[in-house]
Amino acid sequence: MLSHICILLQLRESNATFTNMKIHNFSSGPAILPAEVMRQAAEACIDFNGIGLSILEISHRSKEFLAVLSEAEALIREILGISDEYGVLFLSGGGSSQFYMTAMNLLGSNEKAAFVDTGVWSSNAIKEAKAFGQVEVIASSKDKNYTYIPKGFEVPKDAKYLHITSNNTIRGTQYHRYPETTIPIVSDASSDIFSRPLDISKFGLIYASAQKNVGPAGVTLVIVKKELLGKANRHIPTMLDYRVQIEKESSFNTPPVFPIYVSMLNLRWVKAQGGLSAMAKKNAQKAALMYAAIDRNPLFMNPVEKEDRSIMNAVFRLKDESLEAPFLKLCAQAGCSGVKGHRSVGGFRASMYNAMDLESVQVLASVMDEFAQQYG
Amino acid sequence: MLSHICILLQLRESNATFTNMKIHNFSSGPAILPAEVMRQAAEACIDFNGIGLSILEISHRSKEFLAVLSEAEALIREILGISDEYGVLFLSGGGSSQFYMTAMNLLGSNEKAAFVDTGVWSSNAIKEAKAFGQVEVIASSKDKNYTYIPKGFEVPKDAKYLHITSNNTIRGTQYHRYPETTIPIVSDASSDIFSRPLDISKFGLIYASAQKNVGPAGVTLVIVKKELLGKANRHIPTMLDYRVQIEKESSFNTPPVFPIYVSMLNLRWVKAQGGLSAMAKKNAQKAALMYAAIDRNPLFMNPVEKEDRSIMNAVFRLKDESLEAPFLKLCAQAGCSGVKGHRSVGGFRASMYNAMDLESVQVLASVMDEFAQQYG
Repeated sequence: MLSHICILLQLRESNATFTNMKIHNFSSGPAILPAEVMRQAAEACIDFNGIGLSILEISHRSKEFLAVLSEAEALIREILGISDEYGVLFLSGGGSSQFYMTAMNLLGSNEKAAFVDTGVWSSNAIKEAKAFGQVEVIASSKDKNYTYIPKGFEVPKDAKYLHITSNNTIRGTQYHRYPETTIPIVSDASSDIFSRPLDISKFGLIYASAQKNVGPAGVTLVIVKKELLGKANRHIPTMLDYRVQIEKESSFNTPPVFPIYVSMLNLRWVKAQGGLSAMAKKNAQKAALMYAAIDRNPLFMNPVEKEDRSIMNAVFRLKDESLEAPFLKLCAQAGCSGVKGHRSVGGFRASMYNAMDLESVQVLASVMDEFAQQYG
Repeated sequence: MLSHICILLQLRESNATFTNMKIHNFSSGPAILPAEVMRQAAEACIDFNGIGLSILEISHRSKEFLAVLSEAEALIREILGISDEYGVLFLSGGGSSQFYMTAMNLLGSNEKAAFVDTGVWSSNAIKEAKAFGQVEVIASSKDKNYTYIPKGFEVPKDAKYLHITSNNTIRGTQYHRYPETTIPIVSDASSDIFSRPLDISKFGLIYASAQKNVGPAGVTLVIVKKELLGKANRHIPTMLDYRVQIEKESSFNTPPVFPIYVSMLNLRWVKAQGGLSAMAKKNAQKAALMYAAIDRNPLFMNPVEKEDRSIMNAVFRLKDESLEAPFLKLCAQAGCSGVKGHRSVGGFRASMYNAMDLESVQVLASVMDEFAQQYG
């Protein structure tokens, strides 16, 4: 028993597995986390901070966990530069729960919210919001199969907020400049929060499921400007009311202890690496390398407008789809995992979140070059 | 780095900590889990099933996680004896989210639900349900400070369901016989599911936050009779609709991967130990030992009607409250942790969930005996 986990650790720390190969994890989410975060998480499962108990069995009201919660919030505020005007919440239910919670909390039944549609996540947010008020889709990239980010649209001044999806993991598109508007922006930043600096003051609310750049699946981050709350004038179940969650510091009931703990460890890592400017620099390098590999390769193509390409998720296709199986085989042989595209669109996708090193992108780029030599 | 976790494991496996003392975890939840489950959880944080990736970074659509989800559901169905008439769901948000979700899904706005009030959890369920239909509190033990389970009440035949709290962690009360009724029972079994055999056919819906006998905090189990669904005739946000969650096998969006995995490990352990009859036998022994220690001790008292005492949570008080601090000090010296009562009622509480060994209860009983000798 004892030796087994120690062998696992030895293999892992020498960047190998039982098959002696490093796995490069391009999964779109749940996604790669720093190796040291996973080791610290493992340690805490055995003994948390030397208290003789596992993180899995301690009370959410214990001083040990309250310190975790408080450090996690402080790290988020520090890294993103969030003022006291905003609440920072650790909820559950993922981004899909925020699709309705945002409207339920912010939108009166006679009020209007504006939406930009950049793919399935926006469409789902639009669908869920319709039950709570008027929804106006003011721009969409559906006409070109969601391969770009709409620009130059007018935001109606009577809308309560403008909802956008900051980065679309499936289509590989990303806002590199946010819409200019005086109304608060509500942003689903699930797949690009903490990947680059962000001017929080433009936003009324930002939500993000954790399982990309925040931590493991099971916790959802909500950052909300307090002055927007309490105006929708409808019954809201206690657990769904942002005001209650702010007042109770995310602990009206038992919060997801372990996912919050691992998120805190990961945020410590982000800070230690140099924060968002360091993340942005590294992410830009990886994306440049990846898109160069696609663009120079005659077998592959990326359908996204260049200026709207996502730094987090590069989608690409083989012009000849019959070559997909041999390409995936070559990826697997090189230890590149999670390269398959989303089941709704097919093709391939390389997700390159904060914890991914440049080396992993280099390995995938080499696989693509080698594939072109073999099949080109 | 490597040696640190190996030292932790060595200490833990020899039932010790850095301070060379075994901790007996009486926490009411999040609560004790089997040591082997915590070790397996730690291993999976480093390398899950030898695939070279951590459980924290794999896709919820990967075949590895789908196997976890499917085994977890199969174990629940097997251990509790659940037929295909019921859906088994892994949701999030805890029991407190089920307070409103049960009513939202099962109760039409002109329909009535009956409730038994046995303390704060029932009261919260009543409060949240009121927004969705008529609520009739048909029995309550509030008159005697929630120290008993009401019996002999009539359940109105026109109610859609009867809601009960199977075990009250704060008051230390538990149903040892469920109400006789022909209408479906909806039971909050957060703190006693998997502690004893259960006749599922009496129930329309059972919900349980994981962090007692199921697994770690961050996942909520819902077992629901499918024929009750789709009748409430109101808009339900997609994520809150049990029918959607059944259809999508708890994966409409990313479920809480790690909490589900650890729950699966724990359910494997429950099965390997002999299932619910073995759990019930062990739990009865622990409770008998604990209540005997309270009853024979002139310094302590338990306020609950004997026939309604909880097998999971024994609450007790010192008749002389000024002795609380020295008693807690003695508990700490013996490694007994989490013995403080809920902040709303004070006193003490020994939670003795499935994973707790008889030995730990013996240690606490000895501390109480020793305390009586010192202060009696």
